[in-house]
Amino acid sequence: MEVKNHSQKKVHEIKTRVRYQETDQMGIVYYGNFFVYFEMGRTEYLRNLGLPYSELEKEHIYFPVTEARCRFRSPAHYDNVLIIQTWVSELKHATVEFSHKVIREDDSTLIAEGISKLACLNASRKPAPMPEKVRKLLQ
Amino acid sequence: MEVKNHSQKKVHEIKTRVRYQETDQMGIVYYGNFFVYFEMGRTEYLRNLGLPYSELEKEHIYFPVTEARCRFRSPAHYDNVLIIQTWVSELKHATVEFSHKVIREDDSTLIAEGISKLACLNASRKPAPMPEKVRKLLQ
Amino acid sequence: MEVKNHSQKKVHEIKTRVRYQETDQMGIVYYGNFFVYFEMGRTEYLRNLGLPYSELEKEHIYFPVTEARCRFRSPAHYDNVLIIQTWVSELKHATVEFSHKVIREDDSTLIAEGISKLACLNASRKPAPMPEKVRKLLQ
Amino acid sequence: MEVKNHSQKKVHEIKTRVRYQETDQMGIVYYGNFFVYFEMGRTEYLRNLGLPYSELEKEHIYFPVTEARCRFRSPAHYDNVLIIQTWVSELKHATVEFSHKVIREDDSTLIAEGISKLACLNASRKPAPMPEKVRKLLQ
Repeated sequence: MEVKNHSQKKVHEIKTRVRYQETDQMGIVYYGNFFVYFEMGRTEYLRNLGLPYSELEKEHIYFPVTEARCRFRSPAHYDNVLIIQTWVSELKHATVEFSHKVIREDDSTLIAEGISKLACLNASRKPAPMPEKVRKLLQ
Repeated sequence: MEVKNHSQKKVHEIKTRVRYQETDQMGIVYYGNFFVYFEMGRTEYLRNLGLPYSELEKEHIYFPVTEARCRFRSPAHYDNVLIIQTWVSELKHATVEFSHKVIREDDSTLIAEGISKLACLNASRKPAPMPEKVRKLLQ
Repeated sequence: MEVKNHSQKKVHEIKTRVRYQETDQMGIVYYGNFFVYFEMGRTEYLRNLGLPYSELEKEHIYFPVTEARCRFRSPAHYDNVLIIQTWVSELKHATVEFSHKVIREDDSTLIAEGISKLACLNASRKPAPMPEKVRKLLQ
Repeated sequence: MEVKNHSQKKVHEIKTRVRYQETDQMGIVYYGNFFVYFEMGRTEYLRNLGLPYSELEKEHIYFPVTEARCRFRSPAHYDNVLIIQTWVSELKHATVEFSHKVIREDDSTLIAEGISKLACLNASRKPAPMPEKVRKLLQ
């Protein structure tokens, strides 16, 4: 897990191996699973900042996804090692947008790319401005 | 959804159609998904008794699964309509065991059969005797 | 399952009940599962046209998803009955875009809306123009 | 990933971190997901023997699961690092049984234990004796 520069943005990389469960009868990774990979990317991006999402939820701060998009460029297969790149592409008062790329390690093929947008909710699950410590780290 | 007699037990039946997401690259339903079908069977068994599980959780009564078993008899495929049969096979002070059969509607092939055992937990998530109203209905 | 008119488009509706497995620890349906609901909507849309997708694959015609987007408007919960509306929003030489709305049956709340775009592949898994019988039905 | 001795058996260990997607509204890992962890354990057990399962399927040898069992001893939570131990507990002419333990890394709590039994199928998906090279490695 390394951090690289991606057009002035901190990009965080993780790797995951495609599970048999994640394939479908077309013999490729089922499209919906890429949103799980995005979630893994976000989790490790935050941990890498010293801000585990599990800690945020213990403080009753929640970041549900409000929008997600993905373009599927090339199929991924069982047992492929995938690199998931994650960076912050937009930061607002109460929302943050992450961008993601999924690349096969073996041959550097771009598999998928997309975004996930999250909104900050407080303990009563109402939209709320992001806590200052969170915003500062995400900048 | 009908109720039939199965060796003196009330058997509750539901139907579900295999989703593309539930298949794997062997072209069959991934084995882990049968435990999701068992969950659907339990949910509808309880609703059929007039006791939706969602209501139980609102009263802070939880029934996590403590044991599950399944024998996979024949593969199921995308778009198959599956009949899920569920009945209570053992009822104790603080646990209940459900038995399940999954049958393909088209040709009556037995696809899978197994059990799921649940323990009753109270609001503080500690093992607790089952509420009387629950036990009575399950008998 | 009925067919309604939605701004000159045939809209096909199905219903599904949220499974416990589909929830996450926020107590709501995990965002990635809405793409599974979209898949169910597409499957039943095609069946309703007399063109089951399972039959297409038997003829070695495949429609993998090339793009997917979803906006999550309101959370859905365990045991909610969801209405999934599906219609064709764009039809091209070799691709088709479906649009989807997910609405809670109880209170008619809009839960999510999005699209899924599919490309036609032939038996050797290469992009190919859509078979004429498929295009005609989708129009 | 190390190999240890477990009552005369080679035990192979892998680690995985609980994904948000794997939790349910009880705030714990959904029971069905442990069978996915078992699959991951089997995949890495075979790779560790120099026999990637992906290679077997390329030679048209399939090992579908015919039976699976799990006892859920203690709940696992989002972001927990889980150790999955896998070993061969029974080897027959045409079937193999794997045993599995899932342990939380932090506090060494036993989370779940179970088995998965697989049958060997040949290219025409019929039961077949296990290829000699497979059996030798599994012994």
